[in-house]
Amino acid sequence: MSKLLIVGTLAFDKIETPFGKTDKILGGAATYIGLSASHFDVESGIVSIIGDDFPNEYLQLLHNKNIDTSGVEIVKGGKTFFWSGKYHNDMNTRDTLITELNTLEDFNPVVPASFKDAEVVMLGNLHPAVQNSVIDQMSVKPKMIILDTMNFWMDVALDDLKKVIKKIDVITINDEEARQLSGEYSLVNAAKKIHEMGPKYVVIKKGEHGALLVNEGKMFYAPALPLASVFDPTGAGDTFAGGFAGYIAKTEDISFNNMKNAVIYGSNLASFCVEKFGTERMQNLTKDEVLQRLHQFKELTQFEIELE
Amino acid sequence: MSKLLIVGTLAFDKIETPFGKTDKILGGAATYIGLSASHFDVESGIVSIIGDDFPNEYLQLLHNKNIDTSGVEIVKGGKTFFWSGKYHNDMNTRDTLITELNTLEDFNPVVPASFKDAEVVMLGNLHPAVQNSVIDQMSVKPKMIILDTMNFWMDVALDDLKKVIKKIDVITINDEEARQLSGEYSLVNAAKKIHEMGPKYVVIKKGEHGALLVNEGKMFYAPALPLASVFDPTGAGDTFAGGFAGYIAKTEDISFNNMKNAVIYGSNLASFCVEKFGTERMQNLTKDEVLQRLHQFKELTQFEIELE
Repeated sequence: MSKLLIVGTLAFDKIETPFGKTDKILGGAATYIGLSASHFDVESGIVSIIGDDFPNEYLQLLHNKNIDTSGVEIVKGGKTFFWSGKYHNDMNTRDTLITELNTLEDFNPVVPASFKDAEVVMLGNLHPAVQNSVIDQMSVKPKMIILDTMNFWMDVALDDLKKVIKKIDVITINDEEARQLSGEYSLVNAAKKIHEMGPKYVVIKKGEHGALLVNEGKMFYAPALPLASVFDPTGAGDTFAGGFAGYIAKTEDISFNNMKNAVIYGSNLASFCVEKFGTERMQNLTKDEVLQRLHQFKELTQFEIELE
Repeated sequence: MSKLLIVGTLAFDKIETPFGKTDKILGGAATYIGLSASHFDVESGIVSIIGDDFPNEYLQLLHNKNIDTSGVEIVKGGKTFFWSGKYHNDMNTRDTLITELNTLEDFNPVVPASFKDAEVVMLGNLHPAVQNSVIDQMSVKPKMIILDTMNFWMDVALDDLKKVIKKIDVITINDEEARQLSGEYSLVNAAKKIHEMGPKYVVIKKGEHGALLVNEGKMFYAPALPLASVFDPTGAGDTFAGGFAGYIAKTEDISFNNMKNAVIYGSNLASFCVEKFGTERMQNLTKDEVLQRLHQFKELTQFEIELE
């Protein structure tokens, strides 16, 4: 069984949407990635940092999904990363109300010995220097390193970001961030410029409009499943990344055709994530539900044109 | 051979984009629809109105594509409809600078006898009362009536619009317009409400994000082809509609599966339209180019997942 190393935040989130609001609930990139990747037969492990305010039941929830948390540092007396945000009516934009880095401020990730040979590494959105340090700790070159990042790091740590993206295979990034990173408006040209910075594969996440995978001129597009109601978009991007990484780890096939499937699985799992607040929908999502939605994705996208 | 009746404007357009600007050039919904539908073996005829300022070479251009223009009324001393617009940098939004209705103001469409039994009717964006009058003139119930409209008619002629959409099979509309017409934000719910107003099929055009076909719970999504540069979006929606209508007319098959193909052909042809100013790219587009792009659309969207 392949190993999938997941690096990212475990967090408290407080979310407000037009449909309601939450108290502090379980959040964080690594959480969403882990829950999503747990739908594939892989050995997943999380590297992260938390305070001792992080409830044991949250760790237990991850253990129940067979996710190894030996790489999670628990800081005594420390407080766990906290994010609070409010979504606008269109659900595509949000305001960050509070960001408390807390223990994350001094995060020096330590990859457990048992995960230094992981076949796939999924670097969730974190300071690029932290992401870089994880790559340097790998004892065997991974088959695939996937990196997620955001505009914030382009603003405050562009040099570090450029350094780490030289070493990775796949970058996942939203459309605006792809434009910012490349200075190109067209996503086709943006992907080309980003290829030149290192990653062979660029996955451009377009929220409700789906995701575009680009590899040196080859392109694949997966729509998001049109939903009657999007309840809470928090974690959708990480859930997408977790599905992508989990599928690649399970299949150990990094051909473009197989990456198409990984994108479809990512979109599939993300379409569930947004149906309820936080991780609620992902916690009890069944294999049958995912399979049924896969059929919906086929219906939604596949056609048969006879060529003359 | 099936007949396709096209109703819509023949016009002068003056266009400004970040890449340049034009003088008065050939434009109009019927023009784009006709050029696009000419890629299929159908007998197309346009019903429209122009002034005698409309150059003969423009009519000749349509004749050369085997488009019948006997239903085009030429008003002596009249001036042809004129539109001028300027696109913003993102190419997704534009300002209308000038709209001169001219002869269009008193347009009473007369369907030529030879097209009163057309199998497919494509009603381009016009006053809904004008669209309605065309339907009333058909002597044989068409296999499919497709209607395009816009927010302007929802603002000023909603009752007329509601009357005509009761009689049609397919409505093509952009995402914002679908929201306005239905009062629903989610496109899934918007399509449901629009079904209840009459049309069994709703095609929601999302510009650079593609098009969504909805039929009572069934959905199909065709992305727009990601392009390195979009030169001029004018006419893309009409070109989409023309490809859709032309394919349906040629195949005479109104099953959902065949309509998927019609959506793909519509997206395919629209992807060419935006590559040059106005109708320039469509005038000399070859069958081989369309076929090659069809392969690109398959590459872009088709995947093979083995279900366990």
